[in-house]
Amino acid sequence: MRNIKLIIEYDGTRYFGWQKQPELRTIQEEIENAIKKITKEDVKLIGSGRTDRGVHARGQVANFHTNSRIPADKFKFALNSVLPFDISIKESTQVDESFHARYSAKGKQYRYLVYNSKTRSPLLRDYSYHVPYTLDLYKIREGAKFFIGTYDFRAFMSSKSCVEDTIRTIYNLEIIENGDLIELKVKGNGFLYNMVRIIVGTLIEVGCGKKKIQDIPKIIESKDRNEAGHTAQPQGLYLDKVFY
Amino acid sequence: MRNIKLIIEYDGTRYFGWQKQPELRTIQEEIENAIKKITKEDVKLIGSGRTDRGVHARGQVANFHTNSRIPADKFKFALNSVLPFDISIKESTQVDESFHARYSAKGKQYRYLVYNSKTRSPLLRDYSYHVPYTLDLYKIREGAKFFIGTYDFRAFMSSKSCVEDTIRTIYNLEIIENGDLIELKVKGNGFLYNMVRIIVGTLIEVGCGKKKIQDIPKIIESKDRNEAGHTAQPQGLYLDKVFY
Repeated sequence: MRNIKLIIEYDGTRYFGWQKQPELRTIQEEIENAIKKITKEDVKLIGSGRTDRGVHARGQVANFHTNSRIPADKFKFALNSVLPFDISIKESTQVDESFHARYSAKGKQYRYLVYNSKTRSPLLRDYSYHVPYTLDLYKIREGAKFFIGTYDFRAFMSSKSCVEDTIRTIYNLEIIENGDLIELKVKGNGFLYNMVRIIVGTLIEVGCGKKKIQDIPKIIESKDRNEAGHTAQPQGLYLDKVFY
Repeated sequence: MRNIKLIIEYDGTRYFGWQKQPELRTIQEEIENAIKKITKEDVKLIGSGRTDRGVHARGQVANFHTNSRIPADKFKFALNSVLPFDISIKESTQVDESFHARYSAKGKQYRYLVYNSKTRSPLLRDYSYHVPYTLDLYKIREGAKFFIGTYDFRAFMSSKSCVEDTIRTIYNLEIIENGDLIELKVKGNGFLYNMVRIIVGTLIEVGCGKKKIQDIPKIIESKDRNEAGHTAQPQGLYLDKVFY
């Protein structure tokens, strides 16, 4: 059997996230259905990880095994012709038998878009987190520095998660300002459940003065979800790249 | 009566354009209805100009007269509380009795977003024009220079329009490249019906080699709509600013 790797862009607005669930529209199921239409096979699509309801991706990665003889790079066009308008395959390639979108991943890069304006933005409503109060970018930038490195990020994991090894490395966390838009770009070897959104929520609380810059190392040390800030809204989050 | 000026952002995806039409959802009608909810008055909202179905705005301007005693800057919040999620008032101010959003306008700035990639983009589907073939940016940039200046732009006006004075001045036409995205930013003293979209369509045809750079001055001179390129899709167009 051949192993096919897909790079996927999607608008998460209309979906209940990546992972297949009975009775709900999910990205995984849409793509599995599209593969079935093309190959007549029931495949299991392995994603690099889940994304939540409303979260977007510019570079989600997934793989599946197939007996189909369709050339690997043609899957892209064949699948795009049957996928809904809000999911698109950007690349399809044949990979080594051993490649596993989740277990082979060495790291990920996410972006988070904050729209910082007194009034809401119709154009960005599903694509950013609207923060209507003044944010101090200096504080956000200084606060962000504390996240870079290898730490136990348990305080920045949703309390719903049961993961035991909560040590992760963040390689960088960049803050890019562009008018009313604040973009947070974060790259790490892996992320806990809701970790990016809780980091963003915490930095926003630092930016508006609810928390202090110096609180961040203490929150990390506390390993207590209650010490960290709120979970920033899903629609500002984009899975940009998965590294292998 | 007081004269209130609004600066408006909207996502044009769900609307049949700005201008009120019986039985159709339009931006003008939504805002007039919102003003009625707030003031109990039937007002006529004067826009700086129409935008077509699917076209967006970051800075449309409109004005209306009212006897309401609501402070001018409070209209913004009051209207946003009743407007649908895809229309937002960014500013509301009281202006001179003589101010007229259309007749007082001295110029406009539009942006047009082209997504140049072999595969479609789910995230940009309603917010850009997807051009799947290779574009030569050098040719587009060189071609764009011919549009700057004062010309009779009759060849770049929809044949549906009956406007007689077709002389307009384009102050600048900038091409900004950002990965797969090509942004065209154009500023002028006024634009004919579909003028920006026909200019973009023509430049895309120059970029893909269907037309030559040197054809552009000849097309302008011809004053013939049939000589110019196609009308680029509405969803890539944004009315950014109106100058007074």
